[in-house]
Amino acid sequence: MSAPFSFELKAKDGRARTGAINTPRGLIRTPAFMPVGTGATVKAMFPEDVAATGADIILGNTYHLMLRPGAERVARLGGLHKFMHWEKPILTDSGGYQVMSLAKLRKISEQGVTFQSHLDGATIELTPERAIEVQCLLGSDIQMVLDECTPFPATHEEAKRSLDLSMRWAERSKAAFETMSAPGQALFGIVQGSIYPDLREESARALTGIGFPGYAVGGLAVGEGQEAMFDTVEITTAFLPEDRPRYLMGVGTPQDMLGAIARGIDMFDCVMPTRSGRHGQAFTWGGRINLRNARYAEDATPLDAESKCPAARYERAYLHHLIKSGEMLGAMLISYANVQFYQELMAKARAAIGAGNFVAFAEDVARRYAVDDES
Amino acid sequence: MSAPFSFELKAKDGRARTGAINTPRGLIRTPAFMPVGTGATVKAMFPEDVAATGADIILGNTYHLMLRPGAERVARLGGLHKFMHWEKPILTDSGGYQVMSLAKLRKISEQGVTFQSHLDGATIELTPERAIEVQCLLGSDIQMVLDECTPFPATHEEAKRSLDLSMRWAERSKAAFETMSAPGQALFGIVQGSIYPDLREESARALTGIGFPGYAVGGLAVGEGQEAMFDTVEITTAFLPEDRPRYLMGVGTPQDMLGAIARGIDMFDCVMPTRSGRHGQAFTWGGRINLRNARYAEDATPLDAESKCPAARYERAYLHHLIKSGEMLGAMLISYANVQFYQELMAKARAAIGAGNFVAFAEDVARRYAVDDES
Ligand SMILES: [Zn+2]
Ligand SMILES: [Zn+2]
Repeated sequence: MSAPFSFELKAKDGRARTGAINTPRGLIRTPAFMPVGTGATVKAMFPEDVAATGADIILGNTYHLMLRPGAERVARLGGLHKFMHWEKPILTDSGGYQVMSLAKLRKISEQGVTFQSHLDGATIELTPERAIEVQCLLGSDIQMVLDECTPFPATHEEAKRSLDLSMRWAERSKAAFETMSAPGQALFGIVQGSIYPDLREESARALTGIGFPGYAVGGLAVGEGQEAMFDTVEITTAFLPEDRPRYLMGVGTPQDMLGAIARGIDMFDCVMPTRSGRHGQAFTWGGRINLRNARYAEDATPLDAESKCPAARYERAYLHHLIKSGEMLGAMLISYANVQFYQELMAKARAAIGAGNFVAFAEDVARRYAVDDES
Repeated sequence: MSAPFSFELKAKDGRARTGAINTPRGLIRTPAFMPVGTGATVKAMFPEDVAATGADIILGNTYHLMLRPGAERVARLGGLHKFMHWEKPILTDSGGYQVMSLAKLRKISEQGVTFQSHLDGATIELTPERAIEVQCLLGSDIQMVLDECTPFPATHEEAKRSLDLSMRWAERSKAAFETMSAPGQALFGIVQGSIYPDLREESARALTGIGFPGYAVGGLAVGEGQEAMFDTVEITTAFLPEDRPRYLMGVGTPQDMLGAIARGIDMFDCVMPTRSGRHGQAFTWGGRINLRNARYAEDATPLDAESKCPAARYERAYLHHLIKSGEMLGAMLISYANVQFYQELMAKARAAIGAGNFVAFAEDVARRYAVDDES
């Protein structure tokens, strides 16, 4: 039998928290960064290298996986972990966000959302119940309720109407989860409410009333800007229980994550380290650098002398050459080094919170990232 | 000081040979397959994984490297081995073959060949002396004379005129090599002569008269077909000294290589394992399979249960999904498994020659490859 799902808070430093989520597939140390494995692969990385970076958990995208290879197929092949050679925990989103950003002919009703696949045009219905069914077929350890990611900007009235729908869907998601899930799996609620404090409070209270083992903050990083995002995170976490993990969806840059940790967030996911890696942008302990830049053409220094990543030992001149030449090895090495940087950032954040010097740590990182090679 | 370059013949089985080339950068066990690292990377593979397959040597393309990142730049960065994190031997071609197949506005004269770069249109001259200079700047362990790869088909008269030019260039290449090379580096001559036995004999005699530590058979695998290739290899190796390694350029399939080994060849290079890997075609001990094929969509068996490659443990259904989705991991895994297969094929060929059962081994492989998933 499986061990239950639980969260242990180990230390606080201001509102920053460090702890661990226990799951039957292993421990997730928090604050945690989840590399994104959209289509059953963290792009351009071997799964053992993802594990070697220190990642305790990855994220899979329900929308992509239900379209290709299909949830039923993944289930017949033994589940997503076996399929993609990743035995540690997997969190899946509900698919709702990608339906709205990628699919064609989307139509939302009380029942759910119908859309056309961006791959073959097939008409598909995604309801709260189907979103849970798909996640259970995948074998996801942490599942997400289907919600509507409220577009930004939204009027208070629009945000309220969207929020109410999401809260009804959250109840239906939980009911479906209770009939379909396996022992040790967990379902997280998602707080919506745009940038309106009263709606965020209302959403948080509604979800805690339903009761979930963890809570996500959704509807952010959609164009509202860092200040509004931080304000909304701060307000939202104030209404979430201390003893449950909090996950800020789709965030973000190192500075975004550290600011959110300071406001009580425990978990993150973002495509940035892998997407940037494919485009030659590297996150290093000396700041973000763009390896396409001609200044690196004869730079014989390693990508990041402070990193423990094997990929960060490669010289910048070589990475510049690979990226300019469109060679896959460039994407492979920089993606690996970027995911490692994100994991090292989380490890150092955990240590700093434990030692009570998180503010100084975050300021040090902010200084390193003040000069951005991209700009 | 460096150890000298030498070749030791260890066993023969019919005309098949096994031995070892000693170089200052390590031993090359023969028959040897050299993965192709065109632009300073064996495509989609980490250099340590290339080494883990058992490759003792890789090939670099002078044409590509002289254009990008440039031979002088590589030299300033410490040479090609350091640049691409590969410390074992590297063989470079002369660039001549790619000039004729890739460059624009090619013009051959007695002096050399002028062409326009396919990257930026720059006009570049490649002479026998410059080809050696570039290879020395790269720090290549085994260098090739500049020659003209005689197009196929060619009349006897055309092949003779082309051959005569190549032999004069071989002399100039050797003279340049003697003034520029480092201790322990070697220069190979290249036999031309199209499919004409008398010209192949003439070319082999001319080159052995000049004297090289190894000989390549060039101008094959250019459309002449397997039978004509085998006949030409058989005739050519008969006129090459027993105590020097023999390299068949740009070949080939498992069956091509085994047929050439049976006719006295010791070294091969080919883009096939990596290029096929990127397109979803896998070389396995059960034959060649096309993972794009729908029959693999739910095939839960590993790519190749007989292979020792970590990548060959991945299930066919997963590789099918990755290739169909255009995910880099598909190219990474299949390229790795393919290069491993080529190395295992060479290791088994060496063992079979040592044990005196090479013919039976080659017949077994031919049976495994008789049914081709591609056809
Ligand atoms: Zn993101
Ligand atoms: Zn080839």
